[in-house]
Amino acid sequence: MGKEIPTRSEDYSSWYNELVKKADLAEHSDVRGCMVIKPYGYSIWEKMQQALDKMFKDTGHVNAYFPLFVPKSMFEAEEKNAEGFAKECAIVTHYRLKSDPKNPGKLIVDPDAKLEEELVVRPTSEAIIWSTYKKWIQSYRDLPILVNQWANVVRWEMRTRLFLRTAEFLWQEGHTAHATSKEAVDETVQMLNVYAEFAERFMAMPVIKGRKSEGERFPGAVDTYCIEAMMQDGKALQAGTSHFLGQNFANAFDVKFATKEGKLDHVWGTSWGVSTRLMGALIMAHSDDDGLVLPPKLAPIHVVIVPIFRNEEELSKLTVEVDKMAKSLRDAGYTVKFDNRDTQKPGFKFAEWELKGVPVRLAIGPRDLENGTVEVARRDTKTKEVMKLSDVATAIPKLLDDIQENIYKKALSFRESMITRVDTYDAFKQVLDEKTGFVLAHWDGTPETEAAIKEETKATIRCIPLDAPEEAGKCIYSGKPSSRRVLFARAY
Amino acid sequence: MGKEIPTRSEDYSSWYNELVKKADLAEHSDVRGCMVIKPYGYSIWEKMQQALDKMFKDTGHVNAYFPLFVPKSMFEAEEKNAEGFAKECAIVTHYRLKSDPKNPGKLIVDPDAKLEEELVVRPTSEAIIWSTYKKWIQSYRDLPILVNQWANVVRWEMRTRLFLRTAEFLWQEGHTAHATSKEAVDETVQMLNVYAEFAERFMAMPVIKGRKSEGERFPGAVDTYCIEAMMQDGKALQAGTSHFLGQNFANAFDVKFATKEGKLDHVWGTSWGVSTRLMGALIMAHSDDDGLVLPPKLAPIHVVIVPIFRNEEELSKLTVEVDKMAKSLRDAGYTVKFDNRDTQKPGFKFAEWELKGVPVRLAIGPRDLENGTVEVARRDTKTKEVMKLSDVATAIPKLLDDIQENIYKKALSFRESMITRVDTYDAFKQVLDEKTGFVLAHWDGTPETEAAIKEETKATIRCIPLDAPEEAGKCIYSGKPSSRRVLFARAY
Ligand SMILES: [Zn+2]
Ligand SMILES: [Zn+2]
Repeated sequence: MGKEIPTRSEDYSSWYNELVKKADLAEHSDVRGCMVIKPYGYSIWEKMQQALDKMFKDTGHVNAYFPLFVPKSMFEAEEKNAEGFAKECAIVTHYRLKSDPKNPGKLIVDPDAKLEEELVVRPTSEAIIWSTYKKWIQSYRDLPILVNQWANVVRWEMRTRLFLRTAEFLWQEGHTAHATSKEAVDETVQMLNVYAEFAERFMAMPVIKGRKSEGERFPGAVDTYCIEAMMQDGKALQAGTSHFLGQNFANAFDVKFATKEGKLDHVWGTSWGVSTRLMGALIMAHSDDDGLVLPPKLAPIHVVIVPIFRNEEELSKLTVEVDKMAKSLRDAGYTVKFDNRDTQKPGFKFAEWELKGVPVRLAIGPRDLENGTVEVARRDTKTKEVMKLSDVATAIPKLLDDIQENIYKKALSFRESMITRVDTYDAFKQVLDEKTGFVLAHWDGTPETEAAIKEETKATIRCIPLDAPEEAGKCIYSGKPSSRRVLFARAY
Repeated sequence: MGKEIPTRSEDYSSWYNELVKKADLAEHSDVRGCMVIKPYGYSIWEKMQQALDKMFKDTGHVNAYFPLFVPKSMFEAEEKNAEGFAKECAIVTHYRLKSDPKNPGKLIVDPDAKLEEELVVRPTSEAIIWSTYKKWIQSYRDLPILVNQWANVVRWEMRTRLFLRTAEFLWQEGHTAHATSKEAVDETVQMLNVYAEFAERFMAMPVIKGRKSEGERFPGAVDTYCIEAMMQDGKALQAGTSHFLGQNFANAFDVKFATKEGKLDHVWGTSWGVSTRLMGALIMAHSDDDGLVLPPKLAPIHVVIVPIFRNEEELSKLTVEVDKMAKSLRDAGYTVKFDNRDTQKPGFKFAEWELKGVPVRLAIGPRDLENGTVEVARRDTKTKEVMKLSDVATAIPKLLDDIQENIYKKALSFRESMITRVDTYDAFKQVLDEKTGFVLAHWDGTPETEAAIKEETKATIRCIPLDAPEEAGKCIYSGKPSSRRVLFARAY
């Protein structure tokens, strides 16, 4: 069909890049580092947004919107946060263009329109939001504040990859304010669990919940929780983070509240976010050499129906039956595409919808019509069966559920096979180079050891798993004592 | 309740500003010209988005996302468009901050991180989108492209007002590409009709559909259609625009397609948008001196229930009955708030929910419980009635429909009363100064006359109404012949 993509084993990286483009998910724009999210890709993102937004609202959050720009003096108020993002900030310095006197029809930046204070295009919104919360919070009665924002952010990147690392990306960022440390920690963990549930239930992607080491923490956070997923090439991908901010931003922006007891205290904060990076995770977790494999819960099209016909008359007879099938499925809430183009052969259509990851394909021809049957192909296993037309309305919803579950189970069993426990640095390096995947190993807890291992192996501590059992051991690098294993991997 | 706002007759402008703030819709941020959309305001915007998004999809459109930044050379490609927005563009010139050697803990723009080419923060996305369409379009088979984008845009403004004019605002922008002029014009008109239907059916705000004069046209468009609404102070507000772009952007970005006949032709385009400005229109169209009046179809809360109680025991008895009522309404799809706070008196609550524009308030006390009744107050007319508890489930949905209709009818009859036909310039000026509102008058069709009238009276041609009948007359300003009346007003 002229849309061939490299296989994963040939070149995983090209497979990914080509798949994103050929399946019409996204493409590079003419703006350095910025992508265009194409309609088919965006419709998957919309499904993610809807599911997440509902989960946020079900846990008591509301949406709001804060400015794109952050004045430099505001941006630098929380020093660690500012330092962490300073090197990747797009800066607005002027507010007007004017005609270029030397080049008619061209424009130049008007030097008379220089801003007194430069504006940072938000790389994250803690600064602008906490400067606003200062106005909203006086007393314990104003707490908690449970706000989320859907927005674009900009982090200047030199090496970009579609969805995984782009200068501009779309995300949601929750920013909450609380009266007590405990409440803020509970919120941080709650949102981590929301992300994990979303990843597993909607994306069919198993994740490991954990806490970041100090070196991998969000700049300005006291503690960063994350969910980590395993991609098919054995690299890890951080799929979401939830930060306990302590009183850091309240201190930086002087946000205090009168407690029930009449004292003044600084407010406790959290922030948490997931981004269009999840699109990259979704693609890499499940797709195969023929294209996307989408879990039904996030698939923009659940069922595609391809008629097999030689002439108009056959097509119109098929259409009568297809319309009935499609209606029964649509009435049950599924999105059905009837691909009745007469410009393409069935084989071309099959390949195209496989590339686009539609979970179920129905094919029906004149012979099927006589027999009252339809051919059902599932995208995940690429198996086919013949089904009675009268069974479609009840069997397809069940099949879609099965596919959702199967995709998850497959990813889970792969992920389980990709967790290796090692006790020596040699074994550690060997696993990273040969088997790849997650490595559970003892670490002495120091930033120095973490940095040395990263330098030597490119592997980072993905997280200290929340369910890691206490286990006495020795650090694979320094030999110093350790009380539990942490999760290492090379990562996106 | 300490949230007093000025009356409309005292000071319409302060009434609006204070209402927006006191009703928790939005506030000014510490970033010049940028607003914070607060959760209650944002939840109304979300309702608008949902309704519009469905209407866009029902008319065959899909969503996508294009970059925030537009390189200067791309921005200036369509000269008229570039010229029209050049004076209000935020410009990114650098991509990094660094520590200020003179001020520890402070940051400065890194002079070594100057961009080779400056980036314009999109004031509108025709340039970036048409530069992308060039890659998407080769043949008539690639057409039409029917894409919409929900995004933030920036237009630098010196004098800002919450929702009505802010440097950053949220909007949707549709950008379509077609094989023929007729198809593009039809699309332009279709989307104008979508906007008009949305304004009238959801916002309960009557609008006049028309075309802009050349002087008021979107920069780069061949023709601009708009919907114009009348605010309570007699000023007009442009609530949405739909542009027929001709082949202007296809020419500028060299977007050609192979026709069915095998020729090469430039593509025809449209663009259309509405923004958070609609929030300002919604507020000013219906609200009164007690606060917001929200049409039920856009109200985040449809029904608030206020219990009247002296003690815990009374409250718990009331709660049993309220839960039943609330459930029956929620099951029917309505949002119900039970305001059972024991920190505020009923009178305070009444005023607060009036300020926030909740369409229906139910109050219930121990006496009501005995009688099996509830007091129903509607926000729009401020009338009250006593209703049987057993009628609530059927009567409230009907009442909400009545309120939606009544708000529209009231706005329509006001708008009709605010359209004045005049035949002389003296009468024209008198109406503008005394009665205000729309003025239907003859105009000679020249930009010079339009500019002179604007200069002398601050009134602009809002539109040439689509339904304006042919009528021979003389221009009120020049006395030259005119074939139809156009709609003038002072406007937001
Ligand atoms: Zn402080
Ligand atoms: Zn050309």
